[in-house]
Amino acid sequence: MPILVMKFGGTSVATLDRIHRASKRVAREVANGYDVIVVVSAMSGKTNELVGWVDETSKFYDAREYDAVVSSGENVTAGLMALRLQEMDIPARSWQGWQVPLKTNSAHSSARIEEIPTDNIMAKFGQGMKVAVIAGFQGISPENRITTLGRGGSDTTAVAFAAAFGAERCDIYTDVDGVYTTDPRITSKARKLDKIAFEEMLELASLGAKVLQTRSVELAMRFKVRLRVLSSFEDNNESAGTLVCDEEDIVESKAVAGVAYSRDEAKVTLISVADRPGIAAAIFGPLAEAGVNVDMIVQNISEEGRTDMTFSLPVDQLARAEKAMNAAKEKGAINFHELVADTDVAKVSVVGIGMRSHAGVAAQMFRALSAEGINIKVITTSEIKISVLIDRKYMELAVQALHDTFELEKA
Amino acid sequence: MPILVMKFGGTSVATLDRIHRASKRVAREVANGYDVIVVVSAMSGKTNELVGWVDETSKFYDAREYDAVVSSGENVTAGLMALRLQEMDIPARSWQGWQVPLKTNSAHSSARIEEIPTDNIMAKFGQGMKVAVIAGFQGISPENRITTLGRGGSDTTAVAFAAAFGAERCDIYTDVDGVYTTDPRITSKARKLDKIAFEEMLELASLGAKVLQTRSVELAMRFKVRLRVLSSFEDNNESAGTLVCDEEDIVESKAVAGVAYSRDEAKVTLISVADRPGIAAAIFGPLAEAGVNVDMIVQNISEEGRTDMTFSLPVDQLARAEKAMNAAKEKGAINFHELVADTDVAKVSVVGIGMRSHAGVAAQMFRALSAEGINIKVITTSEIKISVLIDRKYMELAVQALHDTFELEKA
Repeated sequence: MPILVMKFGGTSVATLDRIHRASKRVAREVANGYDVIVVVSAMSGKTNELVGWVDETSKFYDAREYDAVVSSGENVTAGLMALRLQEMDIPARSWQGWQVPLKTNSAHSSARIEEIPTDNIMAKFGQGMKVAVIAGFQGISPENRITTLGRGGSDTTAVAFAAAFGAERCDIYTDVDGVYTTDPRITSKARKLDKIAFEEMLELASLGAKVLQTRSVELAMRFKVRLRVLSSFEDNNESAGTLVCDEEDIVESKAVAGVAYSRDEAKVTLISVADRPGIAAAIFGPLAEAGVNVDMIVQNISEEGRTDMTFSLPVDQLARAEKAMNAAKEKGAINFHELVADTDVAKVSVVGIGMRSHAGVAAQMFRALSAEGINIKVITTSEIKISVLIDRKYMELAVQALHDTFELEKA
Repeated sequence: MPILVMKFGGTSVATLDRIHRASKRVAREVANGYDVIVVVSAMSGKTNELVGWVDETSKFYDAREYDAVVSSGENVTAGLMALRLQEMDIPARSWQGWQVPLKTNSAHSSARIEEIPTDNIMAKFGQGMKVAVIAGFQGISPENRITTLGRGGSDTTAVAFAAAFGAERCDIYTDVDGVYTTDPRITSKARKLDKIAFEEMLELASLGAKVLQTRSVELAMRFKVRLRVLSSFEDNNESAGTLVCDEEDIVESKAVAGVAYSRDEAKVTLISVADRPGIAAAIFGPLAEAGVNVDMIVQNISEEGRTDMTFSLPVDQLARAEKAMNAAKEKGAINFHELVADTDVAKVSVVGIGMRSHAGVAAQMFRALSAEGINIKVITTSEIKISVLIDRKYMELAVQALHDTFELEKA
């Protein structure tokens, strides 16, 4: 029997009634001839409640106990889903992480999956079981402690199972009906994509699109897992949702597939840094040690042996970055006149594998922004993306202008 | 280090604040020089909520999935308690049933403990851990599925750990401050007992006193675990609560230690049964097969080859018993004129190891009831207990009369 993985997020299993509806979707795929692996999240709100209890109990918490507590919500949903399927006369059983066992490393609260043995579950499929319901988000460490995979980790559980079992596809049921060219709240012209390449999805996920956990996309790309994002609140036909797939499966691609944005940015400029070989290392070494994820970097042209160094970072790491820079200055490791922080910035990005073959995407982007009078503060590019840092107040305008200029509303 | 087991029931860990208070009690015993094994229930209400969800999801549920779902509440409390203890600078960690692993048989929802390996936890104590927090109520079957031990099962978990680790004592913290001569809601003269023998506690627990799970008392008796029941809502000194112990530890015992009662009884009389050798087997065989727990039995003197047979049973098994008896009659296995059921009955019992050496307890009991005009319908006795079935409306009166006649208010 071909194997299908179906993942249901928290809103899709938020109540007994929704678990019932999700079970009907599973039953349909069983009727279609699949052996199904279902991966479930906790009922929505449950994990937050558990995290709240941990926060209230302990300030500097032991991540191993944190994981033991917050993983319990998924166990409940997995058992209930198995029971509901049995009630529909479908042979089903639940597996908790330790029963699979889904083996991870020891990085509690953001563990990486290392191994998923398949023999136990395959044997049950061989004996007539039709559905294995897996508690998502959780695994066990080499020390036999419960680990969790980080927020959105059930996506990664689902993709990892699809890879391990050679599933035909991994369907991610969620509260949106697919991946859009941009956030529909920013422009009503946003259009659902039928297909998107792994690389594009990966960029969009890391640039702020919240539809899939970044790591799940990485894993899908690495193991060529066909990933479909679709709504658990609508009737879906064969071509519903968005298929995240290999770029070869996308016949013709436009230069730009989507526009992403992030408000959670800050910009730091070190003014008049004494310029010398190794100065970049002297600045970014201490930042890395302080756990600051520097994103975009720009260095002004050096004049008279001094330069301005600008970089962007997540806004919640700003205090840490300032502390690290001032400490480095006091130690004499670097020398600058002033540190200027700007939190009124936003990052807007265009993403598309078509950029590789379409020239002039950057020029077109900059023209569109310029036409709206939007000043670009920092630019960074990769092979398939261009990001700019701009004043936050222009963010919506920039997204709309870029969506228009690349004609993303057209299929 | 001597080992102490402390068990906290649902009301004792119902909120984060109560978990905090329970942790302080644990800290005090650590300061007293103990290595502590804490066994926790789910926060009160949680297990009922989970059971409700299972009931709503599935009518004829798979007990393995039921156990997987309802065991999750204890995991949360165990992790939170470990975190709280760490916050108080006490080295602690949690264990879920599968991590110990607490091995049981496969009788899901009422599993029996078969083995508790001690090496893993003892090794941690050897490395400086002071508290092992165990999720109560749960274990794993030989098939690696989660099992639960039945309602009140955390008591049994606690006693089993105390036995396995040779603990000095097993303290059961609950919402009452000990075991009473009878239910204080029935008579204000009810007195807390300082000590009670295992056998007495076992009779009281099976006769309806809800303070301890029957099986936990059996286990304590078998392995000579000193068991203390005490309140988690009061300050306790060394002699707080009630010690359940070997009868040799009770210096002088009165004839009667306590009066128990149960309202959940029914009485069935088969009128004019054809009396012949083997008739009892012909009646009680089919009842046992139907899963009816017959309690008390009385057979009237046979006249002209016919007799009346009366027995008591839990009221919720009455329909099953009637069905079994009528089926046996139709098959010709037994012959009776009429089946008369009476649900307006109650059972009142006096319990005491002193009965073995004090003569005339039964006579004194019957006199006291007679003096109140209470008619006895059925009597049953064991070495250390006398139970009578009476009209339900006289139950409170009977308990009060017996408490008075045996002077249980006096120490």
